[in-house]
Amino acid sequence: MGDDGAVIDHFGRQTVLSTDLLIEGIHFDLMYTPLKHLGYKSVIANISDIYAMNATPTQILLSIAISNKFSVEALDEFYAGIYAACDKYDVDLVGGDTTTSQRGFVISITAIGEVAPDMYVKRDGAKVNDLVCVSGDLGGAFLGLTILEREKKIFEETGAQPDLENRAYIVGRLLKPEARKDVIEYFAEHKITPTSMMDISDGLSSEMLHICKQSNVGCVLYEDKLPLNEDSKDFAYKLELDPTACALSGGEDYELLFTVSQADHEKIAANNGLSIIGYITEAEKGKTFITRGGNKHELVAQGWNHLK
Amino acid sequence: MGDDGAVIDHFGRQTVLSTDLLIEGIHFDLMYTPLKHLGYKSVIANISDIYAMNATPTQILLSIAISNKFSVEALDEFYAGIYAACDKYDVDLVGGDTTTSQRGFVISITAIGEVAPDMYVKRDGAKVNDLVCVSGDLGGAFLGLTILEREKKIFEETGAQPDLENRAYIVGRLLKPEARKDVIEYFAEHKITPTSMMDISDGLSSEMLHICKQSNVGCVLYEDKLPLNEDSKDFAYKLELDPTACALSGGEDYELLFTVSQADHEKIAANNGLSIIGYITEAEKGKTFITRGGNKHELVAQGWNHLK
Repeated sequence: MGDDGAVIDHFGRQTVLSTDLLIEGIHFDLMYTPLKHLGYKSVIANISDIYAMNATPTQILLSIAISNKFSVEALDEFYAGIYAACDKYDVDLVGGDTTTSQRGFVISITAIGEVAPDMYVKRDGAKVNDLVCVSGDLGGAFLGLTILEREKKIFEETGAQPDLENRAYIVGRLLKPEARKDVIEYFAEHKITPTSMMDISDGLSSEMLHICKQSNVGCVLYEDKLPLNEDSKDFAYKLELDPTACALSGGEDYELLFTVSQADHEKIAANNGLSIIGYITEAEKGKTFITRGGNKHELVAQGWNHLK
Repeated sequence: MGDDGAVIDHFGRQTVLSTDLLIEGIHFDLMYTPLKHLGYKSVIANISDIYAMNATPTQILLSIAISNKFSVEALDEFYAGIYAACDKYDVDLVGGDTTTSQRGFVISITAIGEVAPDMYVKRDGAKVNDLVCVSGDLGGAFLGLTILEREKKIFEETGAQPDLENRAYIVGRLLKPEARKDVIEYFAEHKITPTSMMDISDGLSSEMLHICKQSNVGCVLYEDKLPLNEDSKDFAYKLELDPTACALSGGEDYELLFTVSQADHEKIAANNGLSIIGYITEAEKGKTFITRGGNKHELVAQGWNHLK
């Protein structure tokens, strides 16, 4: 800190960079996002992109713009979240600055990571017959957002305090996501090199279509293979939402979507935290989603708004 | 582009990073800043920080947030400026993204540079008796801003079109600054390693005090040594502003402020584009500014607002 830039040594490693710009009112709502969580999540969202390249984040640069309504205490809370994430993921905050905004809070984070030469994973390497896999479970963050938006509306209309009882899991998925460092470590330990990988920030369908497009392949995904959490399912049913739709189109889970060669099947199956949800096909066969009942649909990216 | 991050090779080099967050209404005014110039200047401001570490910028990441009022043509103009600067300074745009803002234009740029190991220059290396030097001339960008703000006010009050006749130099200093790549190249060619360096984005006084603080030294600067452009002086007098005050407190000139050992005196003096404006003293002697009339003042950072 204190210099115009930061200096990092590299000898025989490759540098990976990722940048995110987060705008109040677009990417987050301070009404139900505690500032400490916002700081934490800002780091997670950014370093998740580094892990998604099979790389290890090492440093971040953080610039923020705040209005003069922001108190020193509020800023301390935000930074407490930033530092908590940096500590947990062993990342150093090495630079950036604080500036003024006329309105709203703006966060710009750049993460730097490193990877052994030619071990990085992009989106364009998926091959026909590769397995399509995801980490963790899907749709929780979207359902967390749904309950917080609902409670916000109730509060605005009636003044009633939020009722989040028994919703810790889905609210936690939204407000305190984690990056899948452990998955990258598992790959290294078991000598798995994914052929393509992305983190799921915009929803499974959307990310899967990105991989298909950039790898020039098609895919088949199975509804009954999608990893869903019981609490997520329970709340989805309560709202008369389809948990599958939440998993396909809900964003911000920060799980990893990746493809591996069939030769790695056993290694993936041996990890309970990873799910094989389909396989890669020739591009001409399109992108297919097979429902529990055996019906075939085209996989389409509908986005969050569709679910609301 | 198209991946979560960018991959860069490094073998036996050091990586330098710099990040800037620019907010409409705070850092720029679209009423008198053509978008192409804004794009150009955004890159310049950022890579100037890299040169200020005696390093060479190689890549930038650019993220922007725009409201839906922004047209495709406007965005094209902005990117034309970005690419023009990238071309001129041989820098690649390797990543970033575009997102939505509710109001206003937000620009986040991160520059990556490289430097031979241990050749980078920080702010904390100035030594007693070192020469204090600057590139180019100072105060022009502030005066350019002053005339544009004045014409904006006249336009808002009377509808009269801006009268910028004969003010091309100072308006150009504000709207189309350049980064001092040539100075870094001169250092390399003549084997000069500055002991400390910064770019002048907030004004000479403010930057000089940063170097003094971080190097734990004092300084003496001479008014009659400050490099002033004739057009800048002429316009300052017309406004009854002191050109010296503009040079000390006006920002955004993006010139380099640096210190060198006295052994490099001849090499610096041989370059007409560089000025020796003072020298470094023990910290106890304070920071002194000596006027043309021989009066001694304490050097203070007053900032732009003081001038208005």
